[in-house]
Amino acid sequence: VRSVQVNLGDRSYPIHVKSGLMKQAASILSDQNRGQKWIIVSQYNLMEFFGFDLIAQLKDADFDIDFVTLPVGEVAKSMNEFSRVISQMIELNCDRQTTILALGGGVVGDVAGFVASSIMRGIEYYQIPTTLLAMVDSSIGGKTGINIAEGKNLVGSIYQPKGVLIDPDILESLPKKEIISGLGEVIKYGAIWDRNFLNEISSWLENIDSFPFEEAIAKSCEIKAEVVSRDEREGDLRRILNFGHTIGHALESHLGYGKIRHGEAVALGMKCAGFISQKLELLQTEDLLLLSDTIDRLPMPEIPHINGNHLMSFIKTDKKTEKGILNFVVLEELGKATTSTLVTEELIQESLKVLN
Amino acid sequence: VRSVQVNLGDRSYPIHVKSGLMKQAASILSDQNRGQKWIIVSQYNLMEFFGFDLIAQLKDADFDIDFVTLPVGEVAKSMNEFSRVISQMIELNCDRQTTILALGGGVVGDVAGFVASSIMRGIEYYQIPTTLLAMVDSSIGGKTGINIAEGKNLVGSIYQPKGVLIDPDILESLPKKEIISGLGEVIKYGAIWDRNFLNEISSWLENIDSFPFEEAIAKSCEIKAEVVSRDEREGDLRRILNFGHTIGHALESHLGYGKIRHGEAVALGMKCAGFISQKLELLQTEDLLLLSDTIDRLPMPEIPHINGNHLMSFIKTDKKTEKGILNFVVLEELGKATTSTLVTEELIQESLKVLN
Repeated sequence: VRSVQVNLGDRSYPIHVKSGLMKQAASILSDQNRGQKWIIVSQYNLMEFFGFDLIAQLKDADFDIDFVTLPVGEVAKSMNEFSRVISQMIELNCDRQTTILALGGGVVGDVAGFVASSIMRGIEYYQIPTTLLAMVDSSIGGKTGINIAEGKNLVGSIYQPKGVLIDPDILESLPKKEIISGLGEVIKYGAIWDRNFLNEISSWLENIDSFPFEEAIAKSCEIKAEVVSRDEREGDLRRILNFGHTIGHALESHLGYGKIRHGEAVALGMKCAGFISQKLELLQTEDLLLLSDTIDRLPMPEIPHINGNHLMSFIKTDKKTEKGILNFVVLEELGKATTSTLVTEELIQESLKVLN
Repeated sequence: VRSVQVNLGDRSYPIHVKSGLMKQAASILSDQNRGQKWIIVSQYNLMEFFGFDLIAQLKDADFDIDFVTLPVGEVAKSMNEFSRVISQMIELNCDRQTTILALGGGVVGDVAGFVASSIMRGIEYYQIPTTLLAMVDSSIGGKTGINIAEGKNLVGSIYQPKGVLIDPDILESLPKKEIISGLGEVIKYGAIWDRNFLNEISSWLENIDSFPFEEAIAKSCEIKAEVVSRDEREGDLRRILNFGHTIGHALESHLGYGKIRHGEAVALGMKCAGFISQKLELLQTEDLLLLSDTIDRLPMPEIPHINGNHLMSFIKTDKKTEKGILNFVVLEELGKATTSTLVTEELIQESLKVLN
């Protein structure tokens, strides 16, 4: 098992990455089993794929375990579903000793994490991510959240899990497109933190069928863990994880959710942010080419023409805008990101041409 | 200004206690004013008593300040009110830099604190308690919470404020009964932590009209701050703050909310818990007498006959019961509390005789 530590004092925790790890869940978790109630928070289809096997395995090892399901999609990230999961857990006799296993992608992790942080003022939870995106990003760092009518993730907490269990074998059951989408975030880690890693990803992408997921996930987790350990509550450093996300999020909103995957939108956002970094005379042209070339190795959906003004309207209401000033993540060089307040609307609009 | 520090590493904060402090709020808070939006969360009657003056004072000092009100009573501690306050804050253009001032008693502090911990994954807040109970207890230690159908405080967080501002002059506008109720908690601090303080309280209560509130509040805050600093998340030590609360909470439920005040119920619960401590041969008889005598100096409401079996049913469902075992707070001596798992149902029932 490759283990990466997130270092946050008494809130530190390990990320375990290994093919076949799901089958060893009971032995990994057994020293945390003090006879308390365990609850899997998941989705019904994921319960059928992995969850019922996990329950059988844990029951064999004397865990007192039950499960609660969320609906599929963003609709699960609501105040209603949050309340319902809590009520259901109380009915299942959960108490302060109860431990949650969040089995799913980003949506499940966000809701289950907020439930864990809020029920009886906080209980322990583990993340068991089932998508590449969740494995390399949302399961690490303790961000939890739900949406309200006024916007996404406006309610939530920073609440660290007790551990993250990542089994890359789970990816084999996913549609290829889902996996490729997650590779956008993997490329991001190379771009913002580790030039050599970006070079490796680039050559791995020459033959995507033999892509070494375990290695790429472990390296991505290492980088995210390092950033989160140094900056838990999104001061300046943690912001660099948003590289490609300002334009990426706006693309998601502009095209409408479901039209483009998050990882795909981030990949396109990174192309624009790379262009902007070069225009600001931070990033060398040859480095921009390596970044763009790597991103272009991902199969991408056809996207329609982008209306720059409409796109900008989403960027202006972005949470990352503070007192009207946009903190835009740029690259100083490949493997080194920073934030800039010099990115103008004109420059963003100009950068969109790299998308078509 | 008497200042007491709650020591929790990077979550440390000061408690300021001083008569007339409300008039100096702007100067105390001004070095935290970075041009962000400030929001007072309160109740409309409290806004009329103190809030609008506070707004005028802060506006004079260039604070960008608005307010949101909660309904009076436990009804404010609901998922609905929690959501509504958050939505209203977003409409008022609050962002991650916004600072909340929780102006009110325990209910306001609990809801405003949970809003602060949840909106945009956590913003800063200050507690400005307006009841004696909130001044010496709920405003310190970061416990926040709302109620759901399944029970009280089942949803919430441990989220420390940036500071607590206590102005004992505020008590002058309260009905005497409200103040006396809060003295139950003050007596508790002497009983569990500081025998000399209990002796002082006992003599102060000989003439309640000249009770030195500033001194008693500051000393109570010191003790609570010490306990919370050593045990933020209610391990064994913080539990001693529940002295008198197991039977106290059950009395509140048994008699029905509104029939007895929280502080009064705790005072009666302490008499029972003192009796139990003596029966367990922990507390000396003379110490029990000093404790009971001090409590008896508080004017108490007449309470009807207690049905011991009915009362026990509430104790059995208490959150402090874990896997069926009751952790009961007892006194080893005056000024020293601990928890015991040896307190039987029979002993609790026997102790109720001290109430009549």
